This record gives sequence, structure tokens and C-alpha cells, in this order.
Amino acid sequence: MTVPSDIEIARAARKKPIQEIGCKLGVPSESLIPYGHDKAKISASFIKGLADRPDGKLILVTAINPTPAGEGKTTTTVGLGDGLNRIGKKAVICIREPSLGPCFGVKGGAAGGGYAQVVPMEDINLHFTGDFHAITSAHNLLSALIDNHIYWGNELNIDTRRITWRRVMDMNDRALRQIVTSLGGASNGFPREAGFDITVASEVMAILCLATDLEDLERRLGAIIIGYRRDKSPVFARDLKADGAMAVLLKEALQPNLVQTLENNPALVHGGPFANIAHGCNSVVATKTALKLGDYVVTEAGFGADLGAEKFFDIKCRKAGLTPSAVVLVATVRALKMNGGVAKDDLSREDVAAVERGAVNLARHLENLAKFGVPAVVAINHFTTDTDAEIAAVKAVAEGLGAEAVLCRHWADGAAGITELAETVVRIAETPSAFRPLYPDAMPLFSKIERIAAEIYRAGEVTADKAVREQLADWERQGYGELPVCMAKTQYSFSTDPTLRGAPEGHEVHVREVRLSAGAGFIVAITGEIMTMPGLPRTPSSEKIRLNSDGAIEGLF
Amino acid sequence: MTVPSDIEIARAARKKPIQEIGCKLGVPSESLIPYGHDKAKISASFIKGLADRPDGKLILVTAINPTPAGEGKTTTTVGLGDGLNRIGKKAVICIREPSLGPCFGVKGGAAGGGYAQVVPMEDINLHFTGDFHAITSAHNLLSALIDNHIYWGNELNIDTRRITWRRVMDMNDRALRQIVTSLGGASNGFPREAGFDITVASEVMAILCLATDLEDLERRLGAIIIGYRRDKSPVFARDLKADGAMAVLLKEALQPNLVQTLENNPALVHGGPFANIAHGCNSVVATKTALKLGDYVVTEAGFGADLGAEKFFDIKCRKAGLTPSAVVLVATVRALKMNGGVAKDDLSREDVAAVERGAVNLARHLENLAKFGVPAVVAINHFTTDTDAEIAAVKAVAEGLGAEAVLCRHWADGAAGITELAETVVRIAETPSAFRPLYPDAMPLFSKIERIAAEIYRAGEVTADKAVREQLADWERQGYGELPVCMAKTQYSFSTDPTLRGAPEGHEVHVREVRLSAGAGFIVAITGEIMTMPGLPRTPSSEKIRLNSDGAIEGLF
Repeated sequence: MTVPSDIEIARAARKKPIQEIGCKLGVPSESLIPYGHDKAKISASFIKGLADRPDGKLILVTAINPTPAGEGKTTTTVGLGDGLNRIGKKAVICIREPSLGPCFGVKGGAAGGGYAQVVPMEDINLHFTGDFHAITSAHNLLSALIDNHIYWGNELNIDTRRITWRRVMDMNDRALRQIVTSLGGASNGFPREAGFDITVASEVMAILCLATDLEDLERRLGAIIIGYRRDKSPVFARDLKADGAMAVLLKEALQPNLVQTLENNPALVHGGPFANIAHGCNSVVATKTALKLGDYVVTEAGFGADLGAEKFFDIKCRKAGLTPSAVVLVATVRALKMNGGVAKDDLSREDVAAVERGAVNLARHLENLAKFGVPAVVAINHFTTDTDAEIAAVKAVAEGLGAEAVLCRHWADGAAGITELAETVVRIAETPSAFRPLYPDAMPLFSKIERIAAEIYRAGEVTADKAVREQLADWERQGYGELPVCMAKTQYSFSTDPTLRGAPEGHEVHVREVRLSAGAGFIVAITGEIMTMPGLPRTPSSEKIRLNSDGAIEGLF
Repeated sequence: MTVPSDIEIARAARKKPIQEIGCKLGVPSESLIPYGHDKAKISASFIKGLADRPDGKLILVTAINPTPAGEGKTTTTVGLGDGLNRIGKKAVICIREPSLGPCFGVKGGAAGGGYAQVVPMEDINLHFTGDFHAITSAHNLLSALIDNHIYWGNELNIDTRRITWRRVMDMNDRALRQIVTSLGGASNGFPREAGFDITVASEVMAILCLATDLEDLERRLGAIIIGYRRDKSPVFARDLKADGAMAVLLKEALQPNLVQTLENNPALVHGGPFANIAHGCNSVVATKTALKLGDYVVTEAGFGADLGAEKFFDIKCRKAGLTPSAVVLVATVRALKMNGGVAKDDLSREDVAAVERGAVNLARHLENLAKFGVPAVVAINHFTTDTDAEIAAVKAVAEGLGAEAVLCRHWADGAAGITELAETVVRIAETPSAFRPLYPDAMPLFSKIERIAAEIYRAGEVTADKAVREQLADWERQGYGELPVCMAKTQYSFSTDPTLRGAPEGHEVHVREVRLSAGAGFIVAITGEIMTMPGLPRTPSSEKIRLNSDGAIEGLF
């Protein structure tokens, strides 16, 4: 059977007017703010009116450690949403917005694949409803206000060597990683070292995704630490009176975006924070709104379950008061074979032993997920090269750990290919949730890191320089000790070594640096190198992106 | 009589759904791309279908040299549009989009004032439909591709000292005017001097405003010169294969934005290039679309008539093949008094002699406008402090030059206050237009500058260093000799000295620098200092901008 390309499928979609999709969810036309005919924001005033409704059930889709073979987490999230609707449940999908900049380096994506996609795919990958542009503007307004304050006399005594707030751009531009600003004489200010990150790495993005409403957003924006004085006391965005204007710039962006799947089911695509230096989940506003509008909400978290699910539980659910009812752990036979040591070019050959060897990765994640008290099911995202024996091997591993593993063919068949998973999810989500985060708020910051490393990564020890430990102690004294920890670690391994596949244990986790995202409300613990401004490849995909004679976009996918 | 503040009036507006405004113009709902309920883009495919319709009449609103007293050019443009509709004509207003960045320095504006405004005022001043964000993205994609090309081996041999393409941001950020990029070692590229301009100064903005359709847009983007090789040969954006991807990013932005006046008349608000280093008019696409949809199109040009009207005629009309039918020259009694030497604090006191002295500025502009062969009328934009004797003095000056001067009270009374001007415009626009640009395409570039300086500025001579003259000669040899010239001169005087009010003559115009905007299609001749990245004031207006408890924006106006 031949499945057409993602873009061919997306272009052939029979989209319904977005008002009809809103109607399915009980959102009247006047409460939708349209952006074209197939995208809309749900108005803040309508959302406010939902407060008293009961919540639907929250289903998290996560995955084994990613490999170049691909797992299809977003595709499965979208497919499961369609599958739940197909079996008669009112389900809403919640996923992240992709970043515009990287589309010009390598091909776009992140809206699903095959017959499990959200549309309009091109819009979602490019400007969409302007949320990321608004975040860029709000972030850079604060940056401009910092240098402007210094220019006019620096009343706040900001130490220009200790400014931590950078600038952002939604573009892959390595030349902006490290720059010197304010050159050219007195009228341009005081020269200093500075730099740009990509917009998705902005703390404003993390704030937008964790804020519960406009007031909370403004409060968090004001709590951003932009740098320090010579005496190391922090300077806040509110000290520059920046919070009000930043909130004004983000007023529309905070409202969740409604689009549809290929099967005309509702999807909220909203917010897209980095999954390393931030928590990597779509916005709290979108998730909470979806829970009020649907009986089931299917959402995903960035990277593998060791990072994405842990942060979803320990940061997003903890802070937003969400109680997840079930977890879907996505795996593919191909990815398990890579975890079992098979090279990428050999993945199409049957190798049951390799599947069994690689399944230790799957098993480890299942064990970990149990620690959060949420029932889990394995979704085997089917590839045409999978054999029955290989699939049976995956099922056996899952069953050995008391979990079901369900074969899903949503990529090729849409909702019809994933009804068994939908039924299973409905069943396991019936159990009242015993959800609990991994550590209490009151635990010391370094102990939180140790807890995650021991329980999730199975590390032997966590090391850190004295400066890092002192910094954490400082923050505890300043009142930030209750914050959760956001781990920045390679997504390719349970360890900090990206080449260690499978289920390593006893390794060392070295915390190189810690950062405080005081507005977002977490401490970032960095292990290894974290790139917050990507570069473009030798032959960027932009060279092939253009409009064809019909006005359609070529080369984006 | 007390008129409420602009923002109070704007908030009290009884806006109609944008589909109703489109309907007035014969644009069906499905050809409108809504952005919320009160803003929409008119789809490119609908516009394409209008080609065979006859054009309405094009009316330019321009002004005397601006003074701190204010003239009200946009207010009069909006008022005249309403006035024409009130006397039963189908009129469409075309104005520029304001820039977001400056709103956080000083108060926002540029959507008219009093009872002559376009709404939604706040949206128009902030993100609006995302056009400027799209321009920023397209511009900075090209910037990133330049440094990326050099990083990967610089096959095109770009001389890194001669890169003229900077980066842009829609923010007042003086720290970014002059920077050094690519610091931090080999993985970040080759350090070089660079900088940011504000987005409205981008050549991409000028291109968007001069392009006739998507194909023309892409061709112009490809023709951008990004810098030079060691042998001084130009490197084009198309050499980096950037044109296609940039056009994709600008696909939506090229479609004009429809909003409404307080009196529910249609206004296209689209594009906003700088009026010094660019031509300062709204987009050709908007103007041409409006001419197909309305019997009268009222538009404006930046700064006073010496810059704005000259560029409108010699760049926009020449290149887009537009034939203006009438010009409205806006003046105020207060501004004429300032031109006559009265200090700002004394403007409320009657001073007929000062009005007469200052009216030399008005007279000079009227004489100049006659050189383009377009009939002109003076609009006296009424202020409550004006006296009958002062108004009579202005009328006498205009009549002495064979022009009518009409008192307009649109600011206080809306359309009802400007019907006399509307009737006059309709009458003078009946004469078949004898429009002619000031100079032929074939004239040498330096002679074009001399022609403008002599005819419009009444300068004694134009001076320029040998390097400037040689640069112009070089461009002529390269085939750019047919381009029009875009003068960058102070807006406050006919001369290059901003303090010389009235009607100076015999002065020297020194061309300090020339720039080639090969994509936009003009040569920029710079006299004096041109600031392409503004800074913020000591107490930026952002400090007062915030959302009030009703969710409305405070402090923006």
C-alpha cells in the first residue's frame, strides 16, 4: 500500500470552516477570533466563563528515547485524538506550535504525519497566528529597556557584566550567538557582550506556557530576573516597569489556537517552549481550556519520557494543578532495534533479538512512569517493514511489566487504525488517578536533581562544582527553594552521554551550570552543552522553498 | 465644545463586522481573510480578478513642512474619505501601517485623530495582521543566509567588509545600531561589524510596498544587493537562493488590510516604509486594489510635500503607472504661525501677520505641486484657537496662487465637518489629469538630484564628494541609471537645515552618501544624518502601558 507524502495528504484535506470545529466543542462563533478561515483563537472571556465546568481526562503521549529512526510522538498524539473521536468520545488534541526559523534549515514538521496530521500544515509551521512574533517582541522590548535604562544613567545600578537577559529571534542565525552591542560612540550606549537565542528558548515562551491567565502572565513577566548588581542582588523586569507593556504585547498570544485534524477533529496548537532549558509542553491555558471543552484531552511532551514526561508531571502538572489519567508510551520496532544496536541502514531487516535487546529502553521508561502513579500503555507506531515476530516481541516485554502494548496504524489508516489504542486508553483512564510528582516542593534544590537522576536516569551520582552548589544555596536563601527543577540533558540517552542507548545505569550526571527562570518558575540544571541558537546547514532548505505557479508553497516539507 | 480623547472616541466606535465593510466594496466574505472580527486581508486571488475594471480617481493628501504644532495629515486623509462617502461617493482610504517599536518610546498614533480615525486603533498600532513581523522574518532570513554562506566556505566570495545588508527589528533599540557579530570561536563564524535597523527601514518593506504582485515581489527580492566582492561586483539575494523563501514568508503580508473608519467607511492600511531612505507611501497593491473598488481613493504620503508628494509622484506613481487626479495640501493656522516665527507656547494668540509671513511655506508647496500637473486644494485643518481673520489670511494666500482653501472641521465633527472639501475635491478632480513626473527616467542620476533640488527645494547648488559622483556613475554603467532618486532630507525645511522654516532659497544641498536599493528600485541620496534605528527616551511610554482590570490597554495613546 502506498501512502502519499505528508504534504500531499495535507493539501488534499477537506477542511471545515473553523467555526464548525468550534461548534463541535461548544464554542460559539463570536467567541472565536478567526485568523483566516481555518484558524482561530478562543477568546479569553469565553475561557473565563468555563471555570465552573468539570474537567475531562488528561492523557499524556510520550516516547522512548528518540533515535534517527523516528518514533512518531506527535503523529500518535493526533492519531489518538482522532481515534477517541471515532469511538464516540469527545476528545481534544493539545500540541505545541513549531518554530518558524528552523523550517529554513531543515524541512518543517511537528504537525503530525501520514493520515494523522493537523492542518493547515504550512501556516502552522510559518507565521500561524503570530504568537511567536509576539513573544519575540515582548522579549526584545525588555532587552531594549535594559540598555536604555543604562544609557540614561543606570539608576538601578545594573552590573553590565552580569546581564543575563539576552535578545531573541525566530531564525537559525549562529552569527548572533555572541555579539558586542552599543558600539559606535556615546550616542549608542555602553558597549557590552550580549547575544541572541532562538525565540522558543525565551523565558517569555516558558512563561506564556505556564501562565494561567493575563494577570498571572503579567506577574510572572515582572518576576523575570534580567541580571544582577555588583552586590549580586537581582534586578527584575518589574524594576524596569516592563511587565505591563510586555503583557499588552502578549494579550492575543495567550489565547489558545484552534485548528483541526485531517478528520475534522479539534486541536489546540499553542506555545512551544524548548524541551531542554524549558519544560517542552504546550500552554497550560490550552490544556485547561481543552479539559473544560472535551471529555478526553490528548497531549504530548518534548523528547523521551525521561525528560518530557518527567517535566510534564513535575513542572506543568504540579504547577497548574493538573491530574493526568493515563500515559501512552510510543515506541517503534525500528527505534527499538536501534536501541538494540542495529545501524540505521539495516533497520528494514527482521531482527527479533535486536528488538528484545533494545526493549530494555522501553522497559525502563515503563518502570519510571509507574513512579508517578499514572497507568501507562505502549503504542507501537506501525511501520510497513515491521514483522509479526518483532511486534510480538515488543508486546511480550510490555506484558512482562504489566502493561499492554497496542499496534497502531494511524499513519496509514487515520482514526480507523488506532481505535484499539483509543479503547485501551479509555479503559485504563477509568482507574482513579494516583498521580504524584517525583519530589516535594520543600526538598532542597540539589536533592531534587539527585532524586531525578537516581529515580529516572538511574545515575550513580550527581556531581557539581562548588560554584553551582553555592548558587543553588543562594537561591534557596532568596526564596526560590520551592521551585521545581528543569533538567537540560541529552534526549538520546538516560545518561548524559548521547551515544549510550538502551538502559544505562550507574553513570555520573555532572551539573555544569544552573540557571534561574524566576518568571517561569523553575531552576534549570544543565548537563552537557545546550545550544539555544541553532545554525543553518551547508545547504539550507530555504534554497528550495518557493511559491509555485499556483501560489502553493514548495520545498517546506 | 469638548472633544473626548482619541482613545475614548476610538473605544466608543460602533464598529461593523469587517464582512459588512467588505460588502460595501463588493468584496464577498470568502475573499476576505479575517483577522479577528474587525480586520481582514483582501485575498490575492480576488484582487487578480479585478484587473479589467476601470480605476477610480486617486487623491493625494500631503502637507506643508511639519512643525511641532501638528498638521493632521492622516486625520485629514481619513476625514476626507468619510466626507466623500457622506456626499454619496464610493471612496476608499489608503494609509500606512504604523510601526510597533516606537509605540513603547512615545505614544502611538498614525490612525488619525478626533472624529476622523480608523479602528481598531490599538491593533493597528501593535501586531495588526502581522505584516511587519513577516517583513522582519524575511529580512533576517536573508541576513542569516549571508553569514551562513560565509561560514560554510563563502563560495560567492562575499567581501565581509562590504556587506551592506543589515538585520532588522521592530523595536527602538539603539544598542543594536552598531555591533560585532560571530564572536566566540570557529563554530560561530567569522567576526564582522554589523548592525540592526528598525523594520520600517528595511528594503523588504519598500519592496513590499512597490511590488505589484507575488511574482514581482519575488523578482525584486532576488534583485536586492546584499554586499560586494573584493572586485566590487555586487552579490544579489538571488545568488543566495533567498528570494523564494523570502516570498513565502511575505505571501500573506502582500495582501492589503481592510479596516474601517469611525463612520464605517472602508480603509486599506497596508505597508509603511520610511519616508527618508524610502518613499514613505502605503503599498501599491493597496492603492491599486482600492482604485478598482472605489470611485475615489484618498491616500497620503510621508512628511511635507517637498519630500512626500515628490516621492509619491516620482517613485510610486511613475513606477506603478498611477495617475493622480488631485492633491490636498493640509495646513493649519498654528503651523503657519510657527513658520512665521511664533514660538510654540504663543500659538494660541491671534497673529494674522505671522500667518501671512508663514504662508510663504504654503505658497511654495502650491507652486511646486503645480509642476506635477495635478490640481491642488488647500485644506485648513481647523483648531479651536483659530480666528476668522487668521483663516481669511490663509485663504487669501491660496487664492493669490489660483487655489481654493477650504476650512475643515472633521477632527471635531467627522464627515459632516469636511463635506465642502469633499465637494471641492470632486470638482477639481473632474479636469483630466495632466500628471507628469519631475524628470525623465533617462536623465543621469546626479542630474535627477539637481532637478529635485532646484525645482522643489529651490537650492542654489548640489554638492557631493568625488566618491559619491563616481558611485552614481558606476551604477549607471551597471544599468541602474534609469532608476528614480529617493531623497533623504530633513522634513522640517525645504533646505537641509531643519531650523530654516518658511521658504528658504539659494541654499546648498550636500549629498553625503548614496545608496542603491536595487530590489525596491531607487537610488537613495542622503543629505544630513539619517537615523535608521531610533532609541527610547529617558522615560519610555512602555512604563505606563498596561492592561487595566477590564483587559483594555492603558497608556498606549
